[in-house]
Amino acid sequence: MKNTDANKELKQLVGKAAAAEVQDGMVCGLGTGSTVVFMVEELGRRVKEENLKIVGVPTSFQTKLLCSQLNIPTMEIQDCSYLDLAIDGADEVDPELNLIKGGGAAHTREKIVVAMAKKFIVIVDETKLVQRLGEKFAVPVEIIPSALKFITQTLIQLGGEPQLRMGVRKDGPVITDNGQMLLDVRFPATVNLKEIDRILHNTPGVIETGLFFNMAQEVLVGTAATQQVTRLSKN
Amino acid sequence: MKNTDANKELKQLVGKAAAAEVQDGMVCGLGTGSTVVFMVEELGRRVKEENLKIVGVPTSFQTKLLCSQLNIPTMEIQDCSYLDLAIDGADEVDPELNLIKGGGAAHTREKIVVAMAKKFIVIVDETKLVQRLGEKFAVPVEIIPSALKFITQTLIQLGGEPQLRMGVRKDGPVITDNGQMLLDVRFPATVNLKEIDRILHNTPGVIETGLFFNMAQEVLVGTAATQQVTRLSKN
Repeated sequence: MKNTDANKELKQLVGKAAAAEVQDGMVCGLGTGSTVVFMVEELGRRVKEENLKIVGVPTSFQTKLLCSQLNIPTMEIQDCSYLDLAIDGADEVDPELNLIKGGGAAHTREKIVVAMAKKFIVIVDETKLVQRLGEKFAVPVEIIPSALKFITQTLIQLGGEPQLRMGVRKDGPVITDNGQMLLDVRFPATVNLKEIDRILHNTPGVIETGLFFNMAQEVLVGTAATQQVTRLSKN
Repeated sequence: MKNTDANKELKQLVGKAAAAEVQDGMVCGLGTGSTVVFMVEELGRRVKEENLKIVGVPTSFQTKLLCSQLNIPTMEIQDCSYLDLAIDGADEVDPELNLIKGGGAAHTREKIVVAMAKKFIVIVDETKLVQRLGEKFAVPVEIIPSALKFITQTLIQLGGEPQLRMGVRKDGPVITDNGQMLLDVRFPATVNLKEIDRILHNTPGVIETGLFFNMAQEVLVGTAATQQVTRLSKN
């Protein structure tokens, strides 16, 4: 479905709806992914045609390059004191708007940007909606390489099935932008992922999990059947 | 006092006492520092003269080199499933045997080793004993560089005074063995460091704090006046 025209139109619809949330003067975190591309393109159009004044804080080289091509001014996270808004995709969204992110190996930087933002809007197509986190997607955990064996053991004790993420077009494991490695962990439906997240944050060698609890205020969902955007809000 | 002969003898005394805890067949985490050097030298003597069979897991290049010179077999943490014992120094020790570590910028690796060990013995001279953590020493926090501003703001909101650790014999900040940066944070006596540690572990961009709560089972303290080793135990 990823490459059909209908799916592309849907992503464009969601991307445009998210771009409409951005207001003049905002410092705005810009995530990464195919839906985000449409959102940034719409922002570029608004900057050019509507003279929208914003500063983008990209979470990836890919998005930074796109901003540069579209003449959207950008700022690095390390130079930034706060963000008015962050917009990003997700790999899974549960009914309470908790997320799994990290398919792109950038969840640590993405979580920093979201934590700095006053509001976080997630943009996805309906295939990302799940009843419980981990239903389809493994939980990515960024780790210090020397702790690989220790954290693997810890995850197995917690009921998980960790797999070191291997590179494609690169021999050996994927190395993140932070110079670290990733474990993708499948958990059985019976575990309490919130408690596991708490334990992992207290495990030396864990840098960041791809679990985003209570961080998203709003999720914009593209629905294929109606070709419309559904808006899910926190209460 | 650091370079007097009396202090050197004291460190030697503590180092030897710790080395006496190591038994045949043990996999043993070996920390870093001037007292640890005496401990490893005594282990080397026991390996040579008493035919002690151990495998050392060094937390630093310095200690690894020393093991190599003394013919103590070593193993990397990433190849290691567990440790029988870890022995390391500390920058501060409170009455409940909680510690501050990280003066050597290696506390993340040290914490991984300690977390993998069945028992952790700390070796210090009496100048490291404090009534409350943070009395003399700032709390080291290893961070992802792009989160520097965000974490600095978070620490100030928590009542801390963070300072980026700057290099000596290197322009700009100290870069850790993990390729990251360090904030040294002074906190007023009124804060609850356990709660701050919990918050920091949930702050994206924080890799590891130098606070070691409930990790040491025993502290061997060298006392200058008596030239003896005092043994502090958890209960």
